[in-house]
Amino acid sequence: MDNLTIALDAMSGDFGPRVVVPATIQALNRYPNLSIFLVGDPTEIGSFLSKENAELINQYQANNRLKVIKSTSVIANDMKPSYAIRHSQGSSMRMALELVKDNQAQACVSAGNTGALMGLSKLLLHSLTGIDRPALVATIPALNNQNTVVLDLGANAECDSNMLVQFAIMGEILAKTVHKITHPRVALLNIGEEDIKGLDKIRSAASILKSNDQINFIGYLEGNELLTGKTDVLVCDGFVGNVTLKTVEGLIKIFMSSFKLSLGHHSLLMKLLSKWLQRKIAKNFGYLDPGRYNGACLLGLQSIVIKSHGSANQKSFFAAIEQAILAIQTNIPEKIASSLSSALPKSE
Amino acid sequence: MDNLTIALDAMSGDFGPRVVVPATIQALNRYPNLSIFLVGDPTEIGSFLSKENAELINQYQANNRLKVIKSTSVIANDMKPSYAIRHSQGSSMRMALELVKDNQAQACVSAGNTGALMGLSKLLLHSLTGIDRPALVATIPALNNQNTVVLDLGANAECDSNMLVQFAIMGEILAKTVHKITHPRVALLNIGEEDIKGLDKIRSAASILKSNDQINFIGYLEGNELLTGKTDVLVCDGFVGNVTLKTVEGLIKIFMSSFKLSLGHHSLLMKLLSKWLQRKIAKNFGYLDPGRYNGACLLGLQSIVIKSHGSANQKSFFAAIEQAILAIQTNIPEKIASSLSSALPKSE
Repeated sequence: MDNLTIALDAMSGDFGPRVVVPATIQALNRYPNLSIFLVGDPTEIGSFLSKENAELINQYQANNRLKVIKSTSVIANDMKPSYAIRHSQGSSMRMALELVKDNQAQACVSAGNTGALMGLSKLLLHSLTGIDRPALVATIPALNNQNTVVLDLGANAECDSNMLVQFAIMGEILAKTVHKITHPRVALLNIGEEDIKGLDKIRSAASILKSNDQINFIGYLEGNELLTGKTDVLVCDGFVGNVTLKTVEGLIKIFMSSFKLSLGHHSLLMKLLSKWLQRKIAKNFGYLDPGRYNGACLLGLQSIVIKSHGSANQKSFFAAIEQAILAIQTNIPEKIASSLSSALPKSE
Repeated sequence: MDNLTIALDAMSGDFGPRVVVPATIQALNRYPNLSIFLVGDPTEIGSFLSKENAELINQYQANNRLKVIKSTSVIANDMKPSYAIRHSQGSSMRMALELVKDNQAQACVSAGNTGALMGLSKLLLHSLTGIDRPALVATIPALNNQNTVVLDLGANAECDSNMLVQFAIMGEILAKTVHKITHPRVALLNIGEEDIKGLDKIRSAASILKSNDQINFIGYLEGNELLTGKTDVLVCDGFVGNVTLKTVEGLIKIFMSSFKLSLGHHSLLMKLLSKWLQRKIAKNFGYLDPGRYNGACLLGLQSIVIKSHGSANQKSFFAAIEQAILAIQTNIPEKIASSLSSALPKSE
């Protein structure tokens, strides 16, 4: 097994090192070939490390599997990306990305400001040739044990038709190479299935994709088809993608919690029944648990950057680290790069 | 009780008179003060009427509570709205709207082409002063028995900031007058809660709404807050609104059906348990059943137009007729018109 090295922006997200540190230890315990750089405020990181098993921590540090890298600032979540990037020197996000740039780490994970992460990643790690703007991609579980690659999930609130086409092509390569789907179906998210529906940029992307005989373009899908597995790749702009994914997450949370509440605990029988049901629900819908698929890959860069939910808890941040491991193991950037030149529409 | 008269586009939607006719009879049975115009192909309508109780039909026709109005064409769902409107003479949709225009009916319900319905409604029934484009609005059930007025749900795929502000104001008046909420909270759907997040048009609408002291503007909400009842009015463009609502509908459908399936029927005990559970689910989540809140009002017109889902079954189309009845009884267009002039931003 090859060694894996990941740089974590330990100060990012709603909880910073409170979540990143225990997720780090969980990952180091789980993956013996993994090393982690924790980039952030050493005092804060130290205080959370001290809550973990001291012997284990010492051992990880002695083996160089765990290194704390000192950063001097944090990019706030409400900071305008352009401002954040200008003032990013010494920040935990930038320093984690620089470890990737300097080939000290193979991937970076951050739960920080999406716009800043996108901008800094482009600046430091560069886009692949032919890609205007990277996109956030995640693989969403669908009915019948299928998976749907969905992008963009929020890196680009505004997209033109060329960007949508590039997203479609990158998503298709991902479905083919990572999910081993021979001839992935590619669809555009729209507000109707008829040709005339939707926004100009979507119709124009559709006509470009139709004429690309390397892409199995199946047309438009509506919001209600999102989790039905009717497509392997679903493409939309980052605004719609973000709202849609968050809507799904919110609804599942409501389901889970209100079902639990509504059953109540009136008697021993009800208590047992309720326990049994919760197991049943977890088994049937657990695959939709947003925490399990936390960690969206910034696709279209020359290196691997994973964006975690800002509100991720330990379990979710651990899932984001696992996404980084998967991306390293499947070598996503190189796979995309090598297939991209033949798949992209020829520029006139 | 005042008499109510509604014109139905009987040929619209995926099923036309197959669904509209039985929903009509259901509505006439339920509401003794209701009269209905069925606009469409008399032969087709007749063939579905003949499947109903003949005595009842004769009685409704004798009392002028049921009238079939002959139209000569149908606007197809995949027709470009501009083309459809130019060729709309004699169509069931246009003739149903003309009955409203001529004061023969108080409301029109159609499950047809949304763009054509929007365009023809504007042309024949006119927008209220100060409203650039009407919006599709629906009241979505949220947690804790709350309701959220959501608009636009698909009438306007592209919106500018002024339109979003107008939607916010119309939604607020609806929440106040129809849902009796004293000081409705108004939010914009966005991809982050911070001021800097999202699209220019949303940020600009936010700054206009902030400066309007008649509106209780609470800022941005994300997709995961959709059904939590954190706001009384949620405003977005028609593309995002349509995708989001359909995502919710699709997910609920998956949830309902996969739960049913997953329990199976292995023994008498399981059968009983499964029945009990299904009742429990229906009770707890039935309020989210998309069919129950079918029928989005085209808000901002001088008259009442209700858009039903194209795929509506009888129960859902009946719900759309009930939406029309509610809109007539609460006199929505007049309420909006009378509050609009003071609430709209003053034009320079």
